[in-house]
Amino acid sequence: MIQPFQIAPGPRVRFGRGEAAFIGEEARALGMERPMLVTDPGLSAAGVLAPVTEGFGKAGVEFALFEQAEPNPSDASISRAKEFYEANNCRGMVAVGGGSAIDTAKAMGVLVTNGGKISDYYGADKPAKRVPPFITVPTTAGTGSEVTRASIITNVEQNTKAGIHADALYADLAVVDSALLATLPRYFAAGALMDALTHAIESIGSKQSSPWTEAMSMRAVAFIGKHARRFVDDPADPESADPIAMAATLAGASFTNTGLGIVHALTHPVYSYFGGHHGTTNGILLADVMAFNLPVMRETYARMAPLLADTGGPGGPGTAETAIESIRALARDIGIPPSLGALGMTEEYLDRMAEEAAQSATVKTNPVHADAQDMKAIYSTLLN
Amino acid sequence: MIQPFQIAPGPRVRFGRGEAAFIGEEARALGMERPMLVTDPGLSAAGVLAPVTEGFGKAGVEFALFEQAEPNPSDASISRAKEFYEANNCRGMVAVGGGSAIDTAKAMGVLVTNGGKISDYYGADKPAKRVPPFITVPTTAGTGSEVTRASIITNVEQNTKAGIHADALYADLAVVDSALLATLPRYFAAGALMDALTHAIESIGSKQSSPWTEAMSMRAVAFIGKHARRFVDDPADPESADPIAMAATLAGASFTNTGLGIVHALTHPVYSYFGGHHGTTNGILLADVMAFNLPVMRETYARMAPLLADTGGPGGPGTAETAIESIRALARDIGIPPSLGALGMTEEYLDRMAEEAAQSATVKTNPVHADAQDMKAIYSTLLN
Repeated sequence: MIQPFQIAPGPRVRFGRGEAAFIGEEARALGMERPMLVTDPGLSAAGVLAPVTEGFGKAGVEFALFEQAEPNPSDASISRAKEFYEANNCRGMVAVGGGSAIDTAKAMGVLVTNGGKISDYYGADKPAKRVPPFITVPTTAGTGSEVTRASIITNVEQNTKAGIHADALYADLAVVDSALLATLPRYFAAGALMDALTHAIESIGSKQSSPWTEAMSMRAVAFIGKHARRFVDDPADPESADPIAMAATLAGASFTNTGLGIVHALTHPVYSYFGGHHGTTNGILLADVMAFNLPVMRETYARMAPLLADTGGPGGPGTAETAIESIRALARDIGIPPSLGALGMTEEYLDRMAEEAAQSATVKTNPVHADAQDMKAIYSTLLN
Repeated sequence: MIQPFQIAPGPRVRFGRGEAAFIGEEARALGMERPMLVTDPGLSAAGVLAPVTEGFGKAGVEFALFEQAEPNPSDASISRAKEFYEANNCRGMVAVGGGSAIDTAKAMGVLVTNGGKISDYYGADKPAKRVPPFITVPTTAGTGSEVTRASIITNVEQNTKAGIHADALYADLAVVDSALLATLPRYFAAGALMDALTHAIESIGSKQSSPWTEAMSMRAVAFIGKHARRFVDDPADPESADPIAMAATLAGASFTNTGLGIVHALTHPVYSYFGGHHGTTNGILLADVMAFNLPVMRETYARMAPLLADTGGPGGPGTAETAIESIRALARDIGIPPSLGALGMTEEYLDRMAEEAAQSATVKTNPVHADAQDMKAIYSTLLN
């Protein structure tokens, strides 16, 4: 028997090299007027915005440019974004960037249509009204936020991350154009794809996994297994950028229906104390969490093994242990640091971080129950 | 590079054994008032409706029962359904049945919200307004209509089938509960699952196929390869009914984004002249159409081969020819007739049916171009 599950209708997805050129006409078709283009400061300097803004021009759509999306956006930054939206009489949001720009737009959109303050909406299914007309355009192949129902916000005072999870946050349209990845620095390319790989593998292992989501996530694992090394070497090459972009979106569309696992429980305290790139931290943790989950994931990981074979080919039959070792090899080859110690973590933090990790909602969907002792054991292995 | 593609957000899907019990509360949540329960005459006699009507009772939702959905619904039957909807002051539609009941509801819904007559909407993207609140509940694991944007209507005067294809036809929710398949007669179970298998394989071969849809359809092929024989022997067994129900829905969610191939071009003239069960006719044609498409599908069919191995297990490596022979063996084993002659087709029909098949829109998405001569050759092979 297949355990009951649900699949939410996410955004329409428009995928392909050069499709960003159509964002202007899509914005018009969605009834946007003077949409707010939400992005982060680096992108327009890098020229990544050009295809989007040219598309606006061709479609005769005026837009208001907001370049102040923060990495790991704070609640205060969301309020500033909302003020900008209202001051500019925007109607519609186009978020171009990584998870930060897209999550900023989602959270801002909740405030625009629902009022109140952002902490009113932390948790599941709180906003009553959908965000304004909304297009997401990922420029990192990582978070999958372009197709998810979540926005992760940092509470600066409490130094914690909180999520808003609701169908009201789904974009109307996600435009996934791998040409926008062309200038990704190697470090971010590597971190982003380890984020996507973590999403795929944690979704497959989730207690809410289904054949539907597993099919999507396994394809994501296969694309990453085959194309990751070449992608970090040359993200401008469409032969690897297309499948990696596809993998990140597939993994997002999968995990938004299943929840994640304890890689994410362990990553958030690392960010709270030491900062760092979310995907990179996931990449440090992934193989060891898989080893922890191995007792119930053996058969599934064994099916993953040929997809992760170093050769890049379909590979031969493999064992669950081969899959885990392939993840370690991949992380090493693309330049993920080998330990949390490399991010600054030391032994004195172990207990409190383990306690915090054990409180994460992702513990509930992880295939094996993990308590603070388990979290501490995983952190300890990765200290040096 | 991956060729550009789009994925439409289809209905929310609620899958699982016993989930039909929740239809009443789902109808209420969707704002339905006195929904029209659209079904066909056999179902309530067979007791298939019971979980749905009990669910309505528990949720305190009154409904209006319309049991006159026709197999291969005619344009006239759609008008009658619409009159019933209006006479009963319905607000909302719950279609329980195979493609016929669900397609009846979709077409009726178009008339309810858009007015006019049904032939105004034949083709792509004609209806301006969405159908009323709409839940689909498949009772055959075949058409996938519960998650598609199409309604196929028979024009009785012209003896042709015409399709309405539009996002406006998507249900709000598809409830897929394999317990509703328990009393499917062997003949219909076999035809339905060959329909689903044809959808999966034609979607994979479509010129608009993408990695996203292929992942879904390949999983459908795997489920059917493994569970089809047991399912037709005992559709009440959840161990096979669950994966077969899942396969039909996955194939539907896939092909609604890609279009189909020439099995469907060839099937429609067979129906026009000789009637018969759509899925059964697909089952007669599928292997020979695969053989026709083989020159460009070799690699893909080879990947399918282990999924279709008779053993039911993951199988070994196989060739494209193995995949085609496995389809033949499956069709034979579950009781699909070996030829179109068994349905009454004779040589004198060949030319005109081939001409008609060559006019089908599905020719455009078939991986290999097929003209009337090609259609005739395929029909000829299957005459006896």
